[in-house]
Amino acid sequence: MARVSQEHLDARRRQILDGAGRCFARNGFHATSMQDVLREVGLSAGAVYRYFRGKDEIIGAIASEAFAGIRGAFEEASRTTPPPTPDVLIGAVFRLFLEERIEGADGQAFARLIIQVWTETLRNEQLAKTLADGYHGMRIAWTDLVAVYRESGVLSADVPADHMARTLIAVVQGFIAQQALFGDVSVEVLEDGLRGLMSMSVDPVGRS
Amino acid sequence: MARVSQEHLDARRRQILDGAGRCFARNGFHATSMQDVLREVGLSAGAVYRYFRGKDEIIGAIASEAFAGIRGAFEEASRTTPPPTPDVLIGAVFRLFLEERIEGADGQAFARLIIQVWTETLRNEQLAKTLADGYHGMRIAWTDLVAVYRESGVLSADVPADHMARTLIAVVQGFIAQQALFGDVSVEVLEDGLRGLMSMSVDPVGRS
Repeated sequence: MARVSQEHLDARRRQILDGAGRCFARNGFHATSMQDVLREVGLSAGAVYRYFRGKDEIIGAIASEAFAGIRGAFEEASRTTPPPTPDVLIGAVFRLFLEERIEGADGQAFARLIIQVWTETLRNEQLAKTLADGYHGMRIAWTDLVAVYRESGVLSADVPADHMARTLIAVVQGFIAQQALFGDVSVEVLEDGLRGLMSMSVDPVGRS
Repeated sequence: MARVSQEHLDARRRQILDGAGRCFARNGFHATSMQDVLREVGLSAGAVYRYFRGKDEIIGAIASEAFAGIRGAFEEASRTTPPPTPDVLIGAVFRLFLEERIEGADGQAFARLIIQVWTETLRNEQLAKTLADGYHGMRIAWTDLVAVYRESGVLSADVPADHMARTLIAVVQGFIAQQALFGDVSVEVLEDGLRGLMSMSVDPVGRS
């Protein structure tokens, strides 16, 4: 019997992740069974379990891929000189990332999957680690960029770069939460809101 | 038999909500049974079911109370003239609100309960409505405040007030998500990050 090519293995893995992603986004992570995933991808249990031991491993792989995708979009968008300000960069990353999203899943369904993953990390250590790694990577990427903002004079307040990084990540996480809960948030809302914040004068009371 | 006083009824209701809140924050909403709640509050099933039909009603009441508490803290903090900028106001509300938090539950446990509530709204319409109402109220409160920022010249960008309102709410939601997931976020992080953002100059590319 001929050995199965890497290309074939990769395509199968892709097929499983995409199909499972559609199921999870459509019906939620908990309400989806492995049987649903098998039906959606049209493969036998034997074929699927060769790649993933269960739903937990699949959702972990989807989360890792999503982080890699966001990082890639972030790095691509921030390669400009001078780098785009947060309003422009966050808007660009959301557009790049959402365009590549799992077909068949709308923005709200995908956001709902993300908040289910957050809750799931409370009882799944492996998934918690995947999220912590992704968060750590985003913190470093933003911290580096904040240093560039400061060097180029775009940022004037003397605040720790990591605190800005975490606040900017919070904006994105909150946007996902709103999208999941209320489903009516467009990327423009965030772009406008960040631009508005950046145009505010700093209250002297707030300075340390 | 003498009629039970309103005061007594209120105290019982309070006792149930506090005890259930401790259980949910400690073990998660799903892992907590009504039996656990009864044991924690030290009341019989008959006494508790007189006030709430089940876990869903209890979590709904806790969420409503939390929103009322946040609104109160927000209104108290924004009563100053001129009103505090978002960095100062969000910091103050978090401090006021966290200080009044359910005793025995740390900040991370409470944040974890909130993200569980978010996920729960995906299958609980009543809870979804409670959250939507609370969100709506916060949007109005922030929109009013943004108008004051604009009138007083603190805000210069010409962006819709509602977009700023939703972005500021996103920062808070994201902060809660980070607290739930990673548990290492202090209020200073958000205050610094917002102050940093406010000190940035607006990229001309980002202007419409």
